[in-house]
Amino acid sequence: MNKVMELLKSHTSVRKFTDKLVDEKLLHQIIQSSQYASTSNHIQAYTIIRIKDQDKKKTLAQLSGNQPYVEDCPIFLVFCADLNRLEKACTMNNETIESNSTEVFIMATVDTALVAQNIMVAAESVGLGGVYIGGIRNNPQDICDLLQIPHHVYPVFGMCLGYPEKTNGTKPRLPLSLVLKEDTYSTDGDEEQLKEYDDLISDYYKERTNNKRSNTWSEGIATFLKAKQRPHMKAFLQSKGFEMK
Amino acid sequence: MNKVMELLKSHTSVRKFTDKLVDEKLLHQIIQSSQYASTSNHIQAYTIIRIKDQDKKKTLAQLSGNQPYVEDCPIFLVFCADLNRLEKACTMNNETIESNSTEVFIMATVDTALVAQNIMVAAESVGLGGVYIGGIRNNPQDICDLLQIPHHVYPVFGMCLGYPEKTNGTKPRLPLSLVLKEDTYSTDGDEEQLKEYDDLISDYYKERTNNKRSNTWSEGIATFLKAKQRPHMKAFLQSKGFEMK
Repeated sequence: MNKVMELLKSHTSVRKFTDKLVDEKLLHQIIQSSQYASTSNHIQAYTIIRIKDQDKKKTLAQLSGNQPYVEDCPIFLVFCADLNRLEKACTMNNETIESNSTEVFIMATVDTALVAQNIMVAAESVGLGGVYIGGIRNNPQDICDLLQIPHHVYPVFGMCLGYPEKTNGTKPRLPLSLVLKEDTYSTDGDEEQLKEYDDLISDYYKERTNNKRSNTWSEGIATFLKAKQRPHMKAFLQSKGFEMK
Repeated sequence: MNKVMELLKSHTSVRKFTDKLVDEKLLHQIIQSSQYASTSNHIQAYTIIRIKDQDKKKTLAQLSGNQPYVEDCPIFLVFCADLNRLEKACTMNNETIESNSTEVFIMATVDTALVAQNIMVAAESVGLGGVYIGGIRNNPQDICDLLQIPHHVYPVFGMCLGYPEKTNGTKPRLPLSLVLKEDTYSTDGDEEQLKEYDDLISDYYKERTNNKRSNTWSEGIATFLKAKQRPHMKAFLQSKGFEMK
C-alpha cells in the first residue's frame, strides 16, 4: 500500500484544532489542485464560500446543530451545488437552462462532493485535518439568508479544516465483501457479515469510551434512520428552484 | 505543492487503456483504503458492483450511451447509492427506515461520491487512470434489471479503470476567484471572469483539436443544458423507492 492509500486509510474526522493558522497560499493550493476533480460535462457546478467573519461562523455553528468546531476551526468552508453560474453561461449564449430537473440536481450534488473530497485529501496530505458538516442542512434557508446564497444554489455541506489538536483512531469500515459485489447485486451472506461488523463496531466503541458506549453499527443506523431526517429539505430545495422534475 | 496535490492536479479522464491487467490485490487495496472516506453518521450508504462478465460490460457500454471504453476497460465499477443495507440494519433492530426522504437521498448520493473520488485518487496514485461514466443514468432501469439492483438502491455513476494507453493534458478549470467566495455569495465581476475563462477554454480546444473545435465554456454549457437532461430520472427514482418526500 503506497503513501496515498495510507493517507486515505488514516482518515478520521477532526473536530479539535490548534490555534495555528492555515497559510492562505496553502489553502489556495489545496483548493486549486482539487478543482481538477472530475465533473459532469465540465459543468463544475459548485461554489465554495469560505467564512472568515467570526460572527457568521458563530451563527453557522448554531444553525448547524450547535457544533462549536464550526466556530472554532481556522477554516470553515460551505460547499454549494451551484446552477446559478450555469444559468449565467446560458444567458451569455441566449439560452435558458432546465434547472429544475432531478438529473441536474444529481450532477451538481456529485460535482460538489467530488471537489470536496479532493480538498479533504489534499488538506490531510499537508497535515491538516477536518470534518464534513452535514448539519449545514439543518437550517438551510437561514444559512442561505446569512450568506446571500441565491436561487438555484444550495448548501450541500460544510467543512472544518485546521491543524489537529487531537486525532482519534480510525473507525472500522464495512468489510470489503459487503460493499463490493461482482456482476450482480447479491445479498447472500450479507446478514451474517453485518452481525460480525456489528460486533466489531461494538468493540470499537467499548474501547474508545472505556465501556461507556457499546452499541452496534446496525443499532446506530436504526436509531438514526427510524426518524425522518431533515424533513424540510424537499420544501427548501423547491423554494430554491430545485423542483426535481 | 506536494506530491498528493500534484497528483490531484494532474487528473484527466482516461478512456484508452493498455491490455495490462490490474492486480486483484491492488484493486482491493484501492477500494479498502478509499472506504475510509467520510460518511454521514457512518451510514456508508453505497455499494460497488464490479463487472467482470464481458457480456454484461458490452451491454452496459451500449446502455451508457455507446461508450466503448466501458466494455474495453480492465475494471468497470458501478457505484450505487444504497439504502437496502440500511433497511436490513433497521430490520435487525425491529425498526423501519424512512427511505423516501430527499435528505436520505442526498446523504446516500454524497456518501457514494466521496468513496468514488477516493478510489479515483488511489487508482491514479498507483499509475492507473480512469473516467466516471454518468451515462450509467441514461438507462438506469435496464441497468438495474441487468445487475439485479434491488429497491432503494440506484446506480449513480460508473467508473472505468486501467493502465492508460493515452493521457491527455489537463483541461483548465474555472479560476479560483470564481469558485471560492468569502463570507457571502457575491457575483460581482463574475461575468467578466467567465468571459476570460471562455477564451481560455476556446484556446484549449483549438490547440487540442488543431483548430477543429473552438467553442467556449459557456457555449458548451448552453448547448448541453438547454435540453432537459435525462428526464426519466424522477420517475425512475420514484419507482426504486426514492420518492424525495
